[in-house]
Amino acid sequence: MPDTHSPHAIRARIRNGEHSGNTSGLAPGFVQCNLVILPQAHAHDFLRFCQANPRPCPLIAMNPSPGDPTLPALGDIDIRRDVPRYRVFESGRAGDDTADIQSLWREDLVVFALGCSFSFEEALLADGLDVRNVSEGVNVPMYRTNTPCTPAGPFSGNMVVSMRPFLAADAIRAIQICTRFPSVHGAPVHLGDPSAIGIGDLSRPDFGDSVSVKQREMPVFWACGVTPQVALENARLPFAITHSPGCMLVTDMRNSQLAIL
Amino acid sequence: MPDTHSPHAIRARIRNGEHSGNTSGLAPGFVQCNLVILPQAHAHDFLRFCQANPRPCPLIAMNPSPGDPTLPALGDIDIRRDVPRYRVFESGRAGDDTADIQSLWREDLVVFALGCSFSFEEALLADGLDVRNVSEGVNVPMYRTNTPCTPAGPFSGNMVVSMRPFLAADAIRAIQICTRFPSVHGAPVHLGDPSAIGIGDLSRPDFGDSVSVKQREMPVFWACGVTPQVALENARLPFAITHSPGCMLVTDMRNSQLAIL
Repeated sequence: MPDTHSPHAIRARIRNGEHSGNTSGLAPGFVQCNLVILPQAHAHDFLRFCQANPRPCPLIAMNPSPGDPTLPALGDIDIRRDVPRYRVFESGRAGDDTADIQSLWREDLVVFALGCSFSFEEALLADGLDVRNVSEGVNVPMYRTNTPCTPAGPFSGNMVVSMRPFLAADAIRAIQICTRFPSVHGAPVHLGDPSAIGIGDLSRPDFGDSVSVKQREMPVFWACGVTPQVALENARLPFAITHSPGCMLVTDMRNSQLAIL
Repeated sequence: MPDTHSPHAIRARIRNGEHSGNTSGLAPGFVQCNLVILPQAHAHDFLRFCQANPRPCPLIAMNPSPGDPTLPALGDIDIRRDVPRYRVFESGRAGDDTADIQSLWREDLVVFALGCSFSFEEALLADGLDVRNVSEGVNVPMYRTNTPCTPAGPFSGNMVVSMRPFLAADAIRAIQICTRFPSVHGAPVHLGDPSAIGIGDLSRPDFGDSVSVKQREMPVFWACGVTPQVALENARLPFAITHSPGCMLVTDMRNSQLAIL
C-alpha cells in the first residue's frame, strides 16, 4: 500500500503542488502548526512576545539559524514549499496568498512554528465530546477580547479567543483534557459570560463562523493562534510571512507527544 | 517544644476529652476524614455504594476487619475515641451526639473513612484562590441536587454538592487543582446555572451557611460528603454511627499524598 496519509507523504504532495488547500483532517494524530516568518531584526522581540504570552503563542519549534529553511525538530521540512498557502505581509498589510515562497526567501528569515487548536480538538473528540465547529463543519468562531497581551517591542494587541460551547460537565472535562496540552493553547482562558472578556455578541465572531449554542450550554473560550497574526499586523513590519488561515504546516510530531502527562 | 500540633497530638487531646469541637484548621497539611460506621450486614452494600459513587463517596480507608477499632493506614487510631463528636443513627434517625462510642462498640462494626473537602480547600488556598466559606468564616453552603446517585442495596439518594464561587479564570484553575485529588471529591461536578442540577436558590442552602457571590463570579459545585449521610438516612438502618458535621477524624496522612500527580 503506498504511503499517502503520513505527514511526509502529505508534505510531498503539497511540495509538488498536488494539494493547495485546507489541512484540516489530514494526517490525523500529528501536530499541525501555525507559522510566522520574520526578518532576524524583529525575531528577538517576537520570541519575547511568545515567551510572555504562551497561551495564545505557544512556540513549538524554530529554524536552527536565520535563513535555514529546515525545521528538523518537526520532520524533513522545507518551510519554503511545504505549506499549502502562505500569506505575505508588507508594512503590516496582508497581500496575496501564494503557494511557494522560494522567490521571497532571505538569509535573515527566522521561522516560528506555533501550536494549533487542531491538536486539542482531536483530544476532545477522542474523549467523545461534541466539538461544535467540527460537528457543524465550519471554522471555529473567534473573537477579539479586551484582554491585552504583554507587549514586546513592536508586538502588541488584545488576545483573540476561539469558542466552543459545552454543557457544564463537558466543559469541566474539556478543561482537564486541554490542561495536558499547554503547547497547543492549554486550558481555556474563560468560560461563561462573554461580556466579562469584552465580547458583545457570540453570534457575530470577528473571525471564522458562528456555531449554535444549545440550551444549558456555556461558551468556553481558548486563547487563539490568530492573536500573533493580530500582533504582527499591529507591528507593521516591512516584511513578514504567515500561513494562510486553515492551511497549516503538517509535522511528524505526534499530538500525544505534546501531552505533559 | 512540646508536640501539640501533630495529628498524633491532636488525637491524644481528643481522646483525653480536651478537644470536643470542630477540627477545621487543625493539623494543617494532614488529611481529615468523614466517618461512617456500619454493622457488617450492611457493609458490603455501602462499599458498593462508595465504589459506584466515588465523587461524593471517595473511600480512603477501612478497618482491617469487622470489630477492629484501628485504622493502621491512617495512623495510630482508636476510632471509638479519636473523633471529637459522633452522631448515632437509629432507624435512619440521628440521635444525640456523643464524644465517645466505646459503650456502643460491637464486634460486627465496619469503619469507612472518606475523603473530605478540607484537603482540596487547602490546595486552593495554597494557590492563592479566595475560598469564600473560609474567607467569610462560615460553613460551606451545601445543596440537594436532582442528580441521583447509583443505588446499592438500601443506599440511595440524590447527590449533595458544596458550592464555592469563583471568577471564571479562578474556576478553571480550581478545576485543574482539584483534578489532582480524586480521593477528596476531585474536580467539580458542575459550574454556572444552579437550576441545571435542580438547585433553586443559592442563598438558601440545604446544609451549612450561605456565602456571598460577587459580580462576575460563577458558582462552582463539588460532590459533597453529606451525600453518604443522606444515603444512610434513606437506608433507615437499625444502627449506624458517623462523625458529627465538622468534627472530623484527623489522620497522619498528608494531603499531598492524595495527589495523583
